[in-house]
Amino acid sequence: MKKLNDLLGYKHRKIYQDDKCFSFCLDSVLLANFIDIKKKDTNILDIGTGNGVIPLILSLKTSNKIVGVEIQKKLSNLAIESVKYNRLENQIDIINQDIKKFSVDKNNYYDIIACNPPYFVEKDNSKTKESVEEVIARHEIKINLEEILKLSKKMLKNNGRLYLIHRVERFVEVVDLYKKYNIEPKRVRFIHNDKNSSAKLFLIEGTKNGNVGLKIDKPLIMFNEGVETEEYLKIIEGE
Amino acid sequence: MKKLNDLLGYKHRKIYQDDKCFSFCLDSVLLANFIDIKKKDTNILDIGTGNGVIPLILSLKTSNKIVGVEIQKKLSNLAIESVKYNRLENQIDIINQDIKKFSVDKNNYYDIIACNPPYFVEKDNSKTKESVEEVIARHEIKINLEEILKLSKKMLKNNGRLYLIHRVERFVEVVDLYKKYNIEPKRVRFIHNDKNSSAKLFLIEGTKNGNVGLKIDKPLIMFNEGVETEEYLKIIEGE
Repeated sequence: MKKLNDLLGYKHRKIYQDDKCFSFCLDSVLLANFIDIKKKDTNILDIGTGNGVIPLILSLKTSNKIVGVEIQKKLSNLAIESVKYNRLENQIDIINQDIKKFSVDKNNYYDIIACNPPYFVEKDNSKTKESVEEVIARHEIKINLEEILKLSKKMLKNNGRLYLIHRVERFVEVVDLYKKYNIEPKRVRFIHNDKNSSAKLFLIEGTKNGNVGLKIDKPLIMFNEGVETEEYLKIIEGE
Repeated sequence: MKKLNDLLGYKHRKIYQDDKCFSFCLDSVLLANFIDIKKKDTNILDIGTGNGVIPLILSLKTSNKIVGVEIQKKLSNLAIESVKYNRLENQIDIINQDIKKFSVDKNNYYDIIACNPPYFVEKDNSKTKESVEEVIARHEIKINLEEILKLSKKMLKNNGRLYLIHRVERFVEVVDLYKKYNIEPKRVRFIHNDKNSSAKLFLIEGTKNGNVGLKIDKPLIMFNEGVETEEYLKIIEGE
């Protein structure tokens, strides 16, 4: 069901989304907030942009060009409508294409690449209650983690930065692949449900051909006794 | 200057230490507290035990045998005196030897290995205000990180566990070396000075030939507005 919603409370952006999009969008909001954009970051790419949450939030941080690539027509159409509604056609390009094809002529082009990737390895018996869109967005069917790293390395400028969010279970694998493709992990932030929980998700920034030296940011704690923390509330409300 | 002190407030252990030992001992206390000992963990080794902080704390958690190996005579003598003072000669063996020689006939022997390693790579111009003992304890002069992983892999039983504390700057390197020597990272805890600080240190547990799957524990926050947090106080007071 297509609806026009506030973008998770973001006052200055509206977005079209499916009913079931919520939790997936939330992780994209967390990733978009983690991304640090400088003026010189002129070319920005979001791989698997879905309904365009990441470009829409990043457009609040920069006036530079942002491209979102999405393989699923239904999702990219939602993204395109949101871009139009927010009158951002001059800044955000939504492209309905397989990133593998899109990347062919994009060597050493991007300053920043963002990706909220499929979290789960492909399985034959995907949950039937998931829609086709969800299955593709959440499972490594059309693309897997190593392919994302390989394509990112190819498309990033020297010293360009790759930002991902992923599940902690795959943290070691993510770090290994960053190293393998010479995207040096520079900054990681773990996301904890509350201060007494182990982390479920993490955010990572890496620099292509960067120097060794990792920073672990202060933890992001989402709830305190069931109530959103001040910081988490600011992130999801876009303040 | 040799003194008999409370072991950082530990009510049931006293330890001989040098005046300058404090911060180094504190990290060993954090590591000892992170170590999870089961009854079946019959053989326990501390590499570079210094004045014996780790064996002395672990002896509060288990009645199994604990061996501490220390290359520096002056430090191992302090450890031996502390073991005697605490009447733990039957449980703790302190051995003044190079771990490289000690390890020769210890294949697949230990259930648990702990190590608070030298944090810094060797430099020609070590700070002159450091004592010889400090320089060796803090810099990779007698042993480096890769050698510790290699020896640990050799000495651990299948499914035995290696526990380290280290600086976040070297986190990626530590994870890489764990993977290289088939000691699968299973649990990591980051240590933050306060809830708004990036992490300086981390604790890591890995299992020899273990399955993939990492857990990031809740963060350890040391201070809240300059005052020790309840959890940190419990750790350093040994409650």
